[in-house]
Amino acid sequence: MGEFGRRGVVVTDIRRPDPLAVDRLAEFGVATAHEAMGRRGLAGPGIRPVQQGARVAGSAVTVLAWPGDNLMIHAAIEQCREGDLLVVQTTSPSTDGAFGDLFATALKRRGVRGVVTTTGVRDTADLREMGFPAWSHGVHAQGTVKATAGSVNVPVVVDGMVVRPGDVVIADDDGVCCVPIDEVDATIAASEKREAKEAADREAYGSGTELSLDRKGLRPLLDELGVRYIAQEEFDAR
Amino acid sequence: MGEFGRRGVVVTDIRRPDPLAVDRLAEFGVATAHEAMGRRGLAGPGIRPVQQGARVAGSAVTVLAWPGDNLMIHAAIEQCREGDLLVVQTTSPSTDGAFGDLFATALKRRGVRGVVTTTGVRDTADLREMGFPAWSHGVHAQGTVKATAGSVNVPVVVDGMVVRPGDVVIADDDGVCCVPIDEVDATIAASEKREAKEAADREAYGSGTELSLDRKGLRPLLDELGVRYIAQEEFDAR
Amino acid sequence: MGEFGRRGVVVTDIRRPDPLAVDRLAEFGVATAHEAMGRRGLAGPGIRPVQQGARVAGSAVTVLAWPGDNLMIHAAIEQCREGDLLVVQTTSPSTDGAFGDLFATALKRRGVRGVVTTTGVRDTADLREMGFPAWSHGVHAQGTVKATAGSVNVPVVVDGMVVRPGDVVIADDDGVCCVPIDEVDATIAASEKREAKEAADREAYGSGTELSLDRKGLRPLLDELGVRYIAQEEFDAR
Amino acid sequence: MGEFGRRGVVVTDIRRPDPLAVDRLAEFGVATAHEAMGRRGLAGPGIRPVQQGARVAGSAVTVLAWPGDNLMIHAAIEQCREGDLLVVQTTSPSTDGAFGDLFATALKRRGVRGVVTTTGVRDTADLREMGFPAWSHGVHAQGTVKATAGSVNVPVVVDGMVVRPGDVVIADDDGVCCVPIDEVDATIAASEKREAKEAADREAYGSGTELSLDRKGLRPLLDELGVRYIAQEEFDAR
Amino acid sequence: MGEFGRRGVVVTDIRRPDPLAVDRLAEFGVATAHEAMGRRGLAGPGIRPVQQGARVAGSAVTVLAWPGDNLMIHAAIEQCREGDLLVVQTTSPSTDGAFGDLFATALKRRGVRGVVTTTGVRDTADLREMGFPAWSHGVHAQGTVKATAGSVNVPVVVDGMVVRPGDVVIADDDGVCCVPIDEVDATIAASEKREAKEAADREAYGSGTELSLDRKGLRPLLDELGVRYIAQEEFDAR
Amino acid sequence: MGEFGRRGVVVTDIRRPDPLAVDRLAEFGVATAHEAMGRRGLAGPGIRPVQQGARVAGSAVTVLAWPGDNLMIHAAIEQCREGDLLVVQTTSPSTDGAFGDLFATALKRRGVRGVVTTTGVRDTADLREMGFPAWSHGVHAQGTVKATAGSVNVPVVVDGMVVRPGDVVIADDDGVCCVPIDEVDATIAASEKREAKEAADREAYGSGTELSLDRKGLRPLLDELGVRYIAQEEFDAR
Repeated sequence: MGEFGRRGVVVTDIRRPDPLAVDRLAEFGVATAHEAMGRRGLAGPGIRPVQQGARVAGSAVTVLAWPGDNLMIHAAIEQCREGDLLVVQTTSPSTDGAFGDLFATALKRRGVRGVVTTTGVRDTADLREMGFPAWSHGVHAQGTVKATAGSVNVPVVVDGMVVRPGDVVIADDDGVCCVPIDEVDATIAASEKREAKEAADREAYGSGTELSLDRKGLRPLLDELGVRYIAQEEFDAR
Repeated sequence: MGEFGRRGVVVTDIRRPDPLAVDRLAEFGVATAHEAMGRRGLAGPGIRPVQQGARVAGSAVTVLAWPGDNLMIHAAIEQCREGDLLVVQTTSPSTDGAFGDLFATALKRRGVRGVVTTTGVRDTADLREMGFPAWSHGVHAQGTVKATAGSVNVPVVVDGMVVRPGDVVIADDDGVCCVPIDEVDATIAASEKREAKEAADREAYGSGTELSLDRKGLRPLLDELGVRYIAQEEFDAR
Repeated sequence: MGEFGRRGVVVTDIRRPDPLAVDRLAEFGVATAHEAMGRRGLAGPGIRPVQQGARVAGSAVTVLAWPGDNLMIHAAIEQCREGDLLVVQTTSPSTDGAFGDLFATALKRRGVRGVVTTTGVRDTADLREMGFPAWSHGVHAQGTVKATAGSVNVPVVVDGMVVRPGDVVIADDDGVCCVPIDEVDATIAASEKREAKEAADREAYGSGTELSLDRKGLRPLLDELGVRYIAQEEFDAR
Repeated sequence: MGEFGRRGVVVTDIRRPDPLAVDRLAEFGVATAHEAMGRRGLAGPGIRPVQQGARVAGSAVTVLAWPGDNLMIHAAIEQCREGDLLVVQTTSPSTDGAFGDLFATALKRRGVRGVVTTTGVRDTADLREMGFPAWSHGVHAQGTVKATAGSVNVPVVVDGMVVRPGDVVIADDDGVCCVPIDEVDATIAASEKREAKEAADREAYGSGTELSLDRKGLRPLLDELGVRYIAQEEFDAR
Repeated sequence: MGEFGRRGVVVTDIRRPDPLAVDRLAEFGVATAHEAMGRRGLAGPGIRPVQQGARVAGSAVTVLAWPGDNLMIHAAIEQCREGDLLVVQTTSPSTDGAFGDLFATALKRRGVRGVVTTTGVRDTADLREMGFPAWSHGVHAQGTVKATAGSVNVPVVVDGMVVRPGDVVIADDDGVCCVPIDEVDATIAASEKREAKEAADREAYGSGTELSLDRKGLRPLLDELGVRYIAQEEFDAR
Repeated sequence: MGEFGRRGVVVTDIRRPDPLAVDRLAEFGVATAHEAMGRRGLAGPGIRPVQQGARVAGSAVTVLAWPGDNLMIHAAIEQCREGDLLVVQTTSPSTDGAFGDLFATALKRRGVRGVVTTTGVRDTADLREMGFPAWSHGVHAQGTVKATAGSVNVPVVVDGMVVRPGDVVIADDDGVCCVPIDEVDATIAASEKREAKEAADREAYGSGTELSLDRKGLRPLLDELGVRYIAQEEFDAR
């Protein structure tokens, strides 16, 4: 990728996952998919939703932009299609409001499901009102310029989460998760198993018929680790 | 406690405060109880509510867990009763989502009022929907393991707030406060006095009959400290 | 200002902007006014709203207070009038809950529009219920004392934003912005132009008739910067 | 402690540990003593040394002060003796430079070993030159006042570490650790064992005669946990 | 300043303070000058020295730059003279390494005393070796572009500290302080008084002839505030 | 990689770069190599050196470990050879002191050049004394366990920097940079060009024969961007 380092590249005609699979992943949500993948693929806790209650998934169109510069987001819009989700990284940390309601208007028109960005966002009241969900490092009204080269549809890193174009990005109130395009089917299968198991657990815990200590067989482990049970009176008297 | 340092202990049969006193403290809320205690007992501003509008108090069941490991939360559930509130500290900072909807289901079944944790939480949409309130360092979907010893019902520290099992922990939109079990009655008495005084203040300020400068007798203090009044025109002309 | 450094001053009879102009600026909101001023005047992203959906503007009454000490807020209330907005800075970083519902009650009675503070706030549920909006560094119930001199209506700095008494401070979900009193008319004029332009952009992007790449004439810039378009297959084959 | 909450107390004639034991703990340093105590007693990573290469231990004289106010440090000096170490907490977070070279001059004269403070420190060049070591949340020149009550020799919390007067506080380049006065002997004994074991480990690893995988018997654990060994060529081919 | 907001301005022929006065302020250092000004003028604790042991003062040449863009630093060099100190702010937070050894080479040649920047710096080993001191938000090697307009010699804000061109900026191990050009003489006079007083204090505390509690007359204040003295035995027995 | 997600894998027999090329990259250092790669490959500013003045490069052996658990570092040592550099990521943020002097002893014996870790390190005085350099998120003495599966020699992310086993990691006072194994030769060539250019620049700036404004041809750009030159007197009079 060296030759494009400073000048940038817009990669077109990217591979995309099966739209039905993307929708299926949205139903599971971030926590379940992350667990189903073997506890991988999660963005760090610094990326938070601007709204409450949204849960979406989309095929990633990625942007690598200069801090304080939204030029490459303009270029990325043209690459977006129905079912995509825009993922923006700046080359160094920046809280500038690189994303706002005009971008959201254009993307919504194209059927894009939302945006995940390491930058700040602005026009947040408008974004909530128009129902275009965003996950970001924060909210800041600081305006940006259109002056510096970057890239569209190259691999990016969002708070530790690697995203390649065409990967499935899931986002909800718990954060953001990325399922590599080649792991979509396996993740759906594992998520279904996990959901079934959790439904049974929920039934057991909600009805009070069984403690997780017993259901998960954890009592022998506590014993093996040397954890002792002792009454408070005795504990205080030591 | 040295002997349990690495292997851990589960302290059973802990002392608990009078349930009616706990409910009374919940009515006052965090700010009033904190002031009534002489401005002590507050967790730092890093512990925030996952939901809006909840105000609860409970008798603390405490957990000291390894970062990234929820084994001891499993052990703690069995020690919880109606009117308790779970308080979780990890031995070093961790944002992992050690607490989610399955734990909440089990705890709600047992009458637990909520959870305060130095870790992250996940399944936050579910927690809000089921009405189980949580206060935490943040939200993160990162899964945890069940591999390392820790303790239940030993003293813990939550963002600077020391909590012993059986202390009353109050939590609302303003944060989290701990009332030691031996100070419950005194804190209720002082909170009642404070509320009466604040009601009178509120009446005075809301009706505009008196400024706090006069009501609190602060004008002489300003004078004694050498604070001068001067018109802007004169100020700018210096 | 040296002579007042330690002892403090309360500046009275400050200049204030035209109330109609202040209301007009509130309508534009933070992002538009900030852009209209040439991308200046914004507070950093660390100052966030306590509530959702408020948008206000007011003539600044400023407070420079000691950390952990609200004495000068008491002194500032007397200087506030209908249409003002209180702006509080401490001389060093402090998250203490220096502002709560009693201050809000007194300020609301005087027609003050809201508060922006570098400190923490408390009684946040009450503030939301009574409709008195606040922007702050965070929420913390920690109580404060009334012991140390400070100043009212001197220049203050809020997360990098300089505010002089009588400047117009705008605050909404996107953050906080300050329009110097001498730039109010120019900012209104520029904001109107910007809104008109954005309405046309929104129409174009929402209807899908034009991409921003074309509308803003950015294609030649991408070309000039050396950004290349290349299909994924070719990109991967390099 | 409620009665002293707002007005404060200076506790005199505190218990102190055996000076020889304190010196012994200084030799082990923070990491060894922390491990010897079962991985307890450590302050968080936010408290850092102002200098490089100092390693001290002392009997804690504690200060609970108001943010931005050093009055109680003045009161604490009188309570300090040869072999003590001053530990300062403010009631809420503050970076003000509450400690500087004049305090250090007075404390050094009294034989105090150093200072650990949740505040900022200043005159750091002087502190290094005079050989009085400090551990703090940071460096800031911000001056403080002498206006508000606090306490001396009550329990304090320093970045999660609980310190009671007379506990032994150890501080070096790795951070700060507290050994409760009743655990001093046990900690020395366990530290000696640990040092012996580590010396043998160091010999084995430095000479290359044995890997820790074998010396600690970890190969079976890796196997039990399902960790597989696989050559890169095979791994890439999956 | 509105007209220059987006396009920028380079202000030439700025007023500068008396060079002898600047050198005198360097001798006092940050903590003393800050106190002498009535505890004003200090940058926050986020701006730290890259080296240890430097203490300089200079007449400020200011730069307002775009994040990730060093174009205006290039423009500022031409405006610098013997005895100046470069002060750089970006319009929004940025840790990019906007300043490195080539800038330092050019500035040192012109007699500039150092640099204070809200950005990151790089080539820090070179900077230390060539003896050109820097104070910054951190260290980062991230390169910058030369693409966006900004300004030279307009007022800037550095971690809360307002700097106008020609103000005296003092920087040492304790941080950074700004003395407005009109307050230089008064600050020197007050600093001299303060140094004399501190020398006497140091003598008293170092010889152990007097405690600060007595020298500052603080015992009556403790009494007035209600601080009580009580032996540990009695305290524990409450 | 899904099948190894929870159970982990140790990849053996990894590809490594030419040792002479690695040494050549160490000579250039982080800032130069990062620029030569087109301003890519840099870790964020959160990873800092524990010592001052070290500059190393090595072939990456990577570790993906559980927070608070150093089991996989034990496993990684066996995979290390002369000229390697250990790179450690935990699956979620952790400041625990997962790396200390015993690991350094074993690695130094095997010819490893240093360690870069997202965790904390401890025994920092020993590390400096034995000349084993470390770059980390911070310093913390907190001990870790050996209980949870992870991986060795899988791709990791260190403060935004992606590292694959066998990539060249460069680390010095400015931070840490990763050169993919396939870009080593191109990066060396570009670094050499850059160094030559910078040497000429340094000569020009140090001798004062030319300003960078002229040498880089930036005057026309300032003009094109609308930056105006104006004397202070005129500026103030607007």
